[in-house]
Amino acid sequence: MKHLLSAADLSRADVTQILDTAEQMHDVQRRDVKKLPALRGRTVVNLFFEDSTRTRSSFEIAGKWLSADVINVSAKGSSVSKGESLRDTVLTVGSMGVDALVIRHHASGAPRQVADWVDASVVNAGDGTHEHPTQALLDAYTMRSRLGDLEGRHVAIVGDLTHSRVVRSNLILLRTLGARVTLVAPPTLMPSGIGAWSKHDGFATTYDLDAVLPDVDAVMMLRVQRERMSGGYFPTPREYTVGYGLTRDRLRLLPEHAVIAHPGPMNRGLEIAADAADEARSVILDQVSAGVAVRMSVLYHLLAGSAEGAES
Amino acid sequence: MKHLLSAADLSRADVTQILDTAEQMHDVQRRDVKKLPALRGRTVVNLFFEDSTRTRSSFEIAGKWLSADVINVSAKGSSVSKGESLRDTVLTVGSMGVDALVIRHHASGAPRQVADWVDASVVNAGDGTHEHPTQALLDAYTMRSRLGDLEGRHVAIVGDLTHSRVVRSNLILLRTLGARVTLVAPPTLMPSGIGAWSKHDGFATTYDLDAVLPDVDAVMMLRVQRERMSGGYFPTPREYTVGYGLTRDRLRLLPEHAVIAHPGPMNRGLEIAADAADEARSVILDQVSAGVAVRMSVLYHLLAGSAEGAES
Amino acid sequence: MKHLLSAADLSRADVTQILDTAEQMHDVQRRDVKKLPALRGRTVVNLFFEDSTRTRSSFEIAGKWLSADVINVSAKGSSVSKGESLRDTVLTVGSMGVDALVIRHHASGAPRQVADWVDASVVNAGDGTHEHPTQALLDAYTMRSRLGDLEGRHVAIVGDLTHSRVVRSNLILLRTLGARVTLVAPPTLMPSGIGAWSKHDGFATTYDLDAVLPDVDAVMMLRVQRERMSGGYFPTPREYTVGYGLTRDRLRLLPEHAVIAHPGPMNRGLEIAADAADEARSVILDQVSAGVAVRMSVLYHLLAGSAEGAES
Repeated sequence: MKHLLSAADLSRADVTQILDTAEQMHDVQRRDVKKLPALRGRTVVNLFFEDSTRTRSSFEIAGKWLSADVINVSAKGSSVSKGESLRDTVLTVGSMGVDALVIRHHASGAPRQVADWVDASVVNAGDGTHEHPTQALLDAYTMRSRLGDLEGRHVAIVGDLTHSRVVRSNLILLRTLGARVTLVAPPTLMPSGIGAWSKHDGFATTYDLDAVLPDVDAVMMLRVQRERMSGGYFPTPREYTVGYGLTRDRLRLLPEHAVIAHPGPMNRGLEIAADAADEARSVILDQVSAGVAVRMSVLYHLLAGSAEGAES
Repeated sequence: MKHLLSAADLSRADVTQILDTAEQMHDVQRRDVKKLPALRGRTVVNLFFEDSTRTRSSFEIAGKWLSADVINVSAKGSSVSKGESLRDTVLTVGSMGVDALVIRHHASGAPRQVADWVDASVVNAGDGTHEHPTQALLDAYTMRSRLGDLEGRHVAIVGDLTHSRVVRSNLILLRTLGARVTLVAPPTLMPSGIGAWSKHDGFATTYDLDAVLPDVDAVMMLRVQRERMSGGYFPTPREYTVGYGLTRDRLRLLPEHAVIAHPGPMNRGLEIAADAADEARSVILDQVSAGVAVRMSVLYHLLAGSAEGAES
Repeated sequence: MKHLLSAADLSRADVTQILDTAEQMHDVQRRDVKKLPALRGRTVVNLFFEDSTRTRSSFEIAGKWLSADVINVSAKGSSVSKGESLRDTVLTVGSMGVDALVIRHHASGAPRQVADWVDASVVNAGDGTHEHPTQALLDAYTMRSRLGDLEGRHVAIVGDLTHSRVVRSNLILLRTLGARVTLVAPPTLMPSGIGAWSKHDGFATTYDLDAVLPDVDAVMMLRVQRERMSGGYFPTPREYTVGYGLTRDRLRLLPEHAVIAHPGPMNRGLEIAADAADEARSVILDQVSAGVAVRMSVLYHLLAGSAEGAES
């Protein structure tokens, strides 16, 4: 595996291998001394064209615990603001001799372009409203930890499907793992071309959250991207909560064994009630914890192979 | 010791232990190769909701010289700006598996709340106008280096007491060490409830700097926080300097053996004359140097204990 | 060598030594495991009063590959914005016990002042429109790699000479190495006092790019600093390209063996055509790669000497 650009690049065997390695990394994470020598002398650049403290920190910690050098480059205050093209920016960073570029970019498809331009491994850390594959991996890791094998499990992904970069990667990955997926959104936030998102069929869409909840093994609440909601007809916050929020009342519809996930940051009281976020079925903080382990695993699989026997 | 939230949490024995360890750290700091393995595999996050290059850099250097991984998280551009609550932000960072959170926050009391929420050790790196305990420790370290034991010594803290986060921690810590403290400020910058700041009695307040100076062993000039002075009656800069600046003329009132301290950054010509900042009695740069040693000591005492025998 | 402030501080022997060491560092850079222990326990601070992702990242990577601790301090959000003087800021950073200060500052001459104030080694990473010596070193390194010894070679530096911090350092360094230099610019971008820039004579100036190109071994295209062009008479972008851009047509004037350099970031289509940037004679990405190796070499020569036998 050279790059991680899309959940669609991963076979079921790939995913299983990444999640299994992540379990070992999670053990390291629980130790007092969190340090493996695997990526010593390797350099990971976090090249973020959009702010994301959570994702950037998670990759930075993952890289450092594997003993890599991690360099943060924010496009704020970078050459980009001087009119340099994306291609020249990444060629420049790539020419310094770095081993991996972790890219967050507002344009869908940017990481795949970058992978064509540079020798380094490229990790898509979120591109526009397109994909966020390590998020999908950490979600799968978290659900697998609680539910076991996801084959045949039923996952509902609920909310602002149009503006989310999480849903597409999750849909693809969950289908790869044999889970059933139901996408739930109000009509104005349901993407029109959603049927083409996955090579796999076997996922459903609905506007009716209450009908779905009693049947799920996991419900994944998406963040309402209020800052992206403009120029269309959108529900008011109150309407949204009534129709699609995981409210206290709806918690009763959810099976005892099911898990509640959210990629964060949460709008408490909007798409998820505080009661839902903080109850025993919630795995929201487990997701954050899993994020570091999964990213350690991804960086390890991308970079460690070629380092064998190369220790100076 | 799990957290360092307030100077009031520290007994005299605690303070002495931290300062004694800081002396050893200061020896490391003076070496060519500044590196101890004590916190290898430990992760320190600088979580700064306000800018403070000086404090952040000091903690970052302290952590790195102890071989910890240090991650900087600025709340600018973080999830906070997306409306996430402080609790969710720190739970998120805490869930990544970090060992210490060094927090600077504009709200008084925020670090103590954070300590209730996370497993990590929390260090208060300045909360609102409340406390800044590592600043008080480095001030005590610096004064002790020049004056010896602070028992019975007389320290004047001068200036903008209302807007300073330094004065309260210093007052508490100096009283713990048995020093006499006099707080000096113009009437409009003297906090009304100042009597309740310390469980220790035995400190005085005055508006008359000239009357105090001949008697002190140390004078600590506070920064005038011009950006915080609004909505009240404040002295003009000229009035301030005439009444409360450590001017060239006032230097003659100060005993030969006394020391001049300032937490920085200085407003030269306002609360302190250039002559005062740069003369032999000034310990202002010693304070900066001590800051790294004291923070190494604090991080060491918070984190190193549980690492014993855990080296991977 | 204690500091690197100006290309004029370097003798021909100094330059040769730095470039020879950079060749060894370049070999490290090409390895899978890019890590030398030379600067373990040394601390390098990138103190940037202006944004420069490219230069900052290059120094950060260089320091980390030599095992130094690297601390980034941006003057945005630093004490500088609270009115602290440059002197107090650098004294503060210097007092923490750091070994090298890498300084980017908008004021010409700032790094030399800083070197008078602190014990640490100071590296000029660009001061105003004055100098940028590591850029000149990496340019020389890149040209030497392609052309061999630069003695007697002819280099044209073309473009916005008035606003460039690159040209002066390059002129000085190339003359030190015995190269012939021709400076090419439109009349309004040719500095009036240019004759005094180098102690070496033997460089020429001209307004006629086409006349020069057939004779050069290297042509260095400068970035048009559009953001600095104000308050004077400047060519329009179209006029600039017609007169001074390295266009497709002009490529035919350039000898086969000659190299095309650009310090970046490029304004493609303005001072350099995409065809020129991307063709075989272009060394623009080699310059970026050389930048890390040259900065490793500089940091090594500044800091490694005194560390001998000091390993803890």
